[in-house]
Amino acid sequence: MLFINSNTACSHIESSEIKNHIGQIVKVHGVVHKIREMSGFAFVILRTKQAMFQCVYSQEFSNFKLCEMKENMGVIVSGEVVSDERSRTGAELRIKDFEIVSTSIEEPPVVFNNKEMACSLEILLDYRPITLRNAKERSIFKLQAGICRGVREFFDQNNFTEIHSPKIVYSGAEGGANIFALDYFGRRAFLAQSPQFYKQMMTGVFERIYEIAPVFRAEKHDTSRHINEYTSIDFEMGFIENFYDICRMETKMLAYAFEFLKSNYAEELSLLKANIPTITEIPSIKFMEAKELISKTYNREITDWEDFEPEEEKLLCEIIKKQTDCELVFVTHYKTSKRPFYSMDSKENPEVTESFDLLFRGLEITTGGQRINDYNMQVEKMQKRRMNVSEFDDFLMAHKYGLPPHGGLGLGLERLTGKLLDFQNIRLSTLFPRDINRLTP
Amino acid sequence: MLFINSNTACSHIESSEIKNHIGQIVKVHGVVHKIREMSGFAFVILRTKQAMFQCVYSQEFSNFKLCEMKENMGVIVSGEVVSDERSRTGAELRIKDFEIVSTSIEEPPVVFNNKEMACSLEILLDYRPITLRNAKERSIFKLQAGICRGVREFFDQNNFTEIHSPKIVYSGAEGGANIFALDYFGRRAFLAQSPQFYKQMMTGVFERIYEIAPVFRAEKHDTSRHINEYTSIDFEMGFIENFYDICRMETKMLAYAFEFLKSNYAEELSLLKANIPTITEIPSIKFMEAKELISKTYNREITDWEDFEPEEEKLLCEIIKKQTDCELVFVTHYKTSKRPFYSMDSKENPEVTESFDLLFRGLEITTGGQRINDYNMQVEKMQKRRMNVSEFDDFLMAHKYGLPPHGGLGLGLERLTGKLLDFQNIRLSTLFPRDINRLTP
Repeated sequence: MLFINSNTACSHIESSEIKNHIGQIVKVHGVVHKIREMSGFAFVILRTKQAMFQCVYSQEFSNFKLCEMKENMGVIVSGEVVSDERSRTGAELRIKDFEIVSTSIEEPPVVFNNKEMACSLEILLDYRPITLRNAKERSIFKLQAGICRGVREFFDQNNFTEIHSPKIVYSGAEGGANIFALDYFGRRAFLAQSPQFYKQMMTGVFERIYEIAPVFRAEKHDTSRHINEYTSIDFEMGFIENFYDICRMETKMLAYAFEFLKSNYAEELSLLKANIPTITEIPSIKFMEAKELISKTYNREITDWEDFEPEEEKLLCEIIKKQTDCELVFVTHYKTSKRPFYSMDSKENPEVTESFDLLFRGLEITTGGQRINDYNMQVEKMQKRRMNVSEFDDFLMAHKYGLPPHGGLGLGLERLTGKLLDFQNIRLSTLFPRDINRLTP
Repeated sequence: MLFINSNTACSHIESSEIKNHIGQIVKVHGVVHKIREMSGFAFVILRTKQAMFQCVYSQEFSNFKLCEMKENMGVIVSGEVVSDERSRTGAELRIKDFEIVSTSIEEPPVVFNNKEMACSLEILLDYRPITLRNAKERSIFKLQAGICRGVREFFDQNNFTEIHSPKIVYSGAEGGANIFALDYFGRRAFLAQSPQFYKQMMTGVFERIYEIAPVFRAEKHDTSRHINEYTSIDFEMGFIENFYDICRMETKMLAYAFEFLKSNYAEELSLLKANIPTITEIPSIKFMEAKELISKTYNREITDWEDFEPEEEKLLCEIIKKQTDCELVFVTHYKTSKRPFYSMDSKENPEVTESFDLLFRGLEITTGGQRINDYNMQVEKMQKRRMNVSEFDDFLMAHKYGLPPHGGLGLGLERLTGKLLDFQNIRLSTLFPRDINRLTP
């Protein structure tokens, strides 16, 4: 019988370790990303796990003809490590030999090994499997992975428990028509618009919970801000005094995640010229006050008293930036009519809710608030809205048998990533976007 | 303008910190999980974020009548911390006063504050929002969160990049009829059976990637091993020599995660009487040899030469356990006819594939293998299967423009959790299970 142990057979070294091997012959593997011919030698740039790694070819020390090596080949190169202070890695690899492990069968239809992708958004997305190989493109998603790492580390440190809630559900949490339906063994089921019900139920179990998972919105908007499937960073916490506890937790979380990126993703941030804010505090303004502030400052007429127009979110961020130098702002106390049935109304004014959005560089990235935890209050609010209460029996079970005061939020991972990079279209920070016209790749 | 900073307002302490406050009056919050009246005093067990926390009530030092406090109330108790070596936390809290922040409106229909849930599986799942409040039940999902933490830490250390692939897809990866369809703005779309295509494409981008996310299988089996939505731990890695590299990586991963659990979840493991294996190596046996070994050992006739019967997986694990003392076993080289089109056939014998399953305590928990990375080889295999190649153009784009040799696996989180706890039904280790008859809660 064969036994598999955990000794990794591969003796290839990582490009980041190269400087520990000066004077040695080592093997490194990667895909030939680009061959740059200079006079008398060539740079061979390998695409490796973490970095683009520059090796040197020269007839002086390389035992093959340069034309034998082609871009997009998967190769194992062996060469001598020579100290080089100009190099980012502190050393350079002089290729002696190489072994081919995979090849491409034709020239790619889009150039992805230049610094920038010089193509339309359409092409960028149509050819996603290969345009993601571009150094900048892949850095976007390295950074996105970094946000999740930072956020999870924060959650762990703050005693949140991760949950995995079902995405096939029997009823939508957010109401409205923007829900995908499917046939579930002859019954009608839906794709979860959010983990809302499950998050709330779980505050009665773990008090603090989080989930980072896909959510589905059948929005028919074809805008730069909407996609139909996105990754939602959700948390929910019990024993809050009011919704500002949630705002404080988000402030801490973002501050933590942003510092995490600066410490661990310096290379990606520099390549993408990202400007990551340092958060100490975030200003907060009531919805109605914000509306009036925008109207006064820009001499705009208020046409919609219930919600922001996208333009107004931008203007508000501009004002706040000028006044406080902060690029984030909490907007609080949204109208009750605009918030879902589980939102807690304000005691002082039941026309508004104990809720908030977080705007970042002109875009809403978070919706959150305090939820109703009292069974009778929840049932009453549902009845006022003429909802079928019995349809929500399972959800209300949590309330009936005691649910602590709680609240939470959902943060769109792709929106956050995009705004950190000053992108104008959410598709740029979505790995494989789904929109009303796009279901591929 | 109000400013939200990251100073947490809450001055309540965590139950785990109690021993640092001996002699002090502190506040702790939680839900009254159980009140146990003794002669002359009572234990009040609070359900807190991490633990069940035992406080003491006595007319000697408590300024209220015990009957004022009820099970399932959310409370903030204040009391004196007294050193107590018998206590798990090293101290006990003598309750002076308490404040009610939430209440239950009636007695729960199932008792969840005893040591064991004395109810049927049906009831356990029907009342999931409250049965999860049981100490043992919630420990199962603490442990599940711990598995994910351990596995992610391992992935980070081994240079895997996390991805978020779409769950609404244009075609299934695994073939067969077990796929959910939905209407996507007038077009037919599907729920991803696995992130297979995206994982493979991404090996050309990051070389090593992972994803922990829901997958959907419309299996009509109503068995103790099947659910229709589960959490899949997926990884894929490039530049492998053969599929044993994947087996080695999984061996390392499980060894790491199991030690992580032992170090960080001792309390849950003890409560659940879990027996976590120590992995140094895992035996590996070819499918055909395994079939014959089972047949010979148990004098069973082989009726299905293509696949295992569930009973055979159990018997094989018994044999391997006896022979090697290991509770895990890799079974390799499954029949080509039984594996999807992206599986690499063995050079020596194209009737079998470079693939494997991992069995743990009688159940398959992982399927993996080497994938075809060569464009022509992949197209040829698809044509042999009379597949519509052009339908997979996006997937094949990765192969066409160079994809390193690669492979990977999918590991069912609920199956792994269940087997670690010796459960006989996967529903017991699924937070809110979905099966052919169950769509709620």
